[in-house]
Amino acid sequence: MAFGWIDEQADARRRAGLVRTLRPRPADTPLLDLASNDYLGLARHPEVTEAAAAAARTWGGGSTGSRLVTGTTELHTELERELADFCGFEAALVFSSGYAANLAAVTALAPHGSLIVSDAGNHASLIDGCRLARATTQVVAHADPEAVRKALGTHAGEAVLVSDTVFSVDGDAAPLAEFAMACREHGAGLVVDDAHGLGVLGPGGRGAPHAAGLAGADDVVVTATLSKSLGSQGGAVLGPARVIEHLINAARTFIFDTGLAPAAAGAALAALRLLRREPERAARARTVATELHARLTAAGLEAVRPDAAVVSVRAPSPESAVRWAADCRAAGLAVGCFRPPSVPDGISRLRLTARADLSGAQIERAVRVIGETRP
Amino acid sequence: MAFGWIDEQADARRRAGLVRTLRPRPADTPLLDLASNDYLGLARHPEVTEAAAAAARTWGGGSTGSRLVTGTTELHTELERELADFCGFEAALVFSSGYAANLAAVTALAPHGSLIVSDAGNHASLIDGCRLARATTQVVAHADPEAVRKALGTHAGEAVLVSDTVFSVDGDAAPLAEFAMACREHGAGLVVDDAHGLGVLGPGGRGAPHAAGLAGADDVVVTATLSKSLGSQGGAVLGPARVIEHLINAARTFIFDTGLAPAAAGAALAALRLLRREPERAARARTVATELHARLTAAGLEAVRPDAAVVSVRAPSPESAVRWAADCRAAGLAVGCFRPPSVPDGISRLRLTARADLSGAQIERAVRVIGETRP
Ligand SMILES: Cc1ncc(COP(=O)(O)O)c(C=O)c1O
Ligand SMILES: Cc1ncc(COP(=O)(O)O)c(C=O)c1O
Repeated sequence: MAFGWIDEQADARRRAGLVRTLRPRPADTPLLDLASNDYLGLARHPEVTEAAAAAARTWGGGSTGSRLVTGTTELHTELERELADFCGFEAALVFSSGYAANLAAVTALAPHGSLIVSDAGNHASLIDGCRLARATTQVVAHADPEAVRKALGTHAGEAVLVSDTVFSVDGDAAPLAEFAMACREHGAGLVVDDAHGLGVLGPGGRGAPHAAGLAGADDVVVTATLSKSLGSQGGAVLGPARVIEHLINAARTFIFDTGLAPAAAGAALAALRLLRREPERAARARTVATELHARLTAAGLEAVRPDAAVVSVRAPSPESAVRWAADCRAAGLAVGCFRPPSVPDGISRLRLTARADLSGAQIERAVRVIGETRP
Repeated sequence: MAFGWIDEQADARRRAGLVRTLRPRPADTPLLDLASNDYLGLARHPEVTEAAAAAARTWGGGSTGSRLVTGTTELHTELERELADFCGFEAALVFSSGYAANLAAVTALAPHGSLIVSDAGNHASLIDGCRLARATTQVVAHADPEAVRKALGTHAGEAVLVSDTVFSVDGDAAPLAEFAMACREHGAGLVVDDAHGLGVLGPGGRGAPHAAGLAGADDVVVTATLSKSLGSQGGAVLGPARVIEHLINAARTFIFDTGLAPAAAGAALAALRLLRREPERAARARTVATELHARLTAAGLEAVRPDAAVVSVRAPSPESAVRWAADCRAAGLAVGCFRPPSVPDGISRLRLTARADLSGAQIERAVRVIGETRP
């Protein structure tokens, strides 16, 4: 029977205790949220939600077409201009998701015959970009500039290095300045995904590339998402105007996808303006992460020192990680739980996000619950 | 220099007259729109935009996380239930775009060692799904059940046929019932993209699979988009509950992508309810398409007889198609212009969409402008 093999896979998942199920949440929950990627606490900020509402009313529920036909409104262009300006790049292009932005950047910037060097810790969307590209991909050891140099040295033609700026699972930062140096030694381009850096790292949240002195460089392309610090949905690619023009002409997930919904563009733009006005939000997210890590460590838990706003806590096994997260939830705390097969290194962990709007008392409560429920 | 090759490609595009540029549109334009995919005219319907606004206020600007962490709200579940029910399938899963839904369905339903048979006219997102899948892909002649039979006959293991229900460029429909028969003869699954069928074809707009008697079949999976007839953004996969469960556990563009923004989910749900209440909208879109085609043909233009709401008009060359569309625009009419390299068959055409809310006078005006500006 068609799709019969699905049942075998489902059985195997059930036996291994690896079944994933959706847990719909209500609009208001008493749970303390350390699971979302709403780093700056802006997703429900009234300025952001009112901007989403106003954009839907002014521009419609959808953008009505691909960006090259009817799907580019003046609102999209405004968001692109302000985003590029904020991050210090010449131009920006907005996509329907960060995932689509990554597919676009990697496939369009790695032509046939070129080499992609890809960090082993990269996000699924960058990996899918590598798989879709017409280039050859060489995966290198995590956060290792020497491995990058070596890989680039094996190839004479065009090459790009592709990396997250902040790795989504463990929250560690890539050595961006060294990566850029390795690329420049070989005339290679650098494509970095700042999904977890934008709004958190750099001056006023301008992102990891800005912090590393790479903003506006003509050999650096940054991808970002509007769905984390900016409290909305969508993605973006930032870089030299000529690169952005190239994407408009060549990137399939740009050309053949409906433009981002106006409400999402409006929400992201409002969040960006809020962040400009209140730059301390970025620093506060980092402070919360540092505090969270210090208190977890003091409580004897094995937490990874955070480079941004993600704090990862080691669990002894996939089963105990799942149980731990469930026990936290039962005690009123929502945490992320990452385990095989969705982690590249096979390590199970709780994933905590340090929101800028967490109070000292909330941080304390979170650490208490995590400590009391530890396996 | 890194990315230096981009300038050469840009020069070649310029010389060939194939440069694409974005044309931001204002919120209100005097242009008569026959270019968008807003088939039912719902994108700016007050019920739809108010639902988007209300959802943003109630649920936030973004869903704040991946669907498996914090990104599933009760609103998402409600939309999934009503969409599945409307189209006659057991379950549905909502994605951030139709593009992501197609990548998910194709990659997750074509395991390693299996065969994908792919119609030559398929949308870019289905093609990218084939490229990403671990299966072998065989592209077959357009809308040709015999070619499908032959391809399926070459393979002993698992197989799926992947096809648009209504092809996006020419607006012709796939022979769905025959496709299903060919699949059943070989025990193969059928995955069809109803992006341009939902809201237009079938009783009350229930879609092409429903019209072909395939709704609820255990060997049929349908993908759809919320960005065309439903006037919003997002995508969906509909099918047996076991297939949907499999996607939740295995589809990378589901697991590693932020959930659809609440405003988009709310807008799509409102549009769906509107369509339920006013089923005549679907029939009206088809009538407008038929009228448009008849009048264009009567005016001596070479138009493809529409199977849904897309009417394609042949142009003699890429250059003349671009000029034709520009002349229409100058005369107050927005039309789509498809030309190489974004059409698989190398044929340049104007692409018109028959919105349900076009009046007889508007149809007349559109045909007059197209006739007067013909190359
Ligand atoms: C590092 C990274 N890149 C890209 C994405 C995809 O962005 P989006 O969810 O906006 O599609 C995510 C998470 O979802 C991510 O963690
Ligand atoms: C046939 C078809 N499938 C899928 C898509 C992608 O859907 P979305 O734009 O919602 O991502 C489109 C158009 O955009 C399409 O025409």
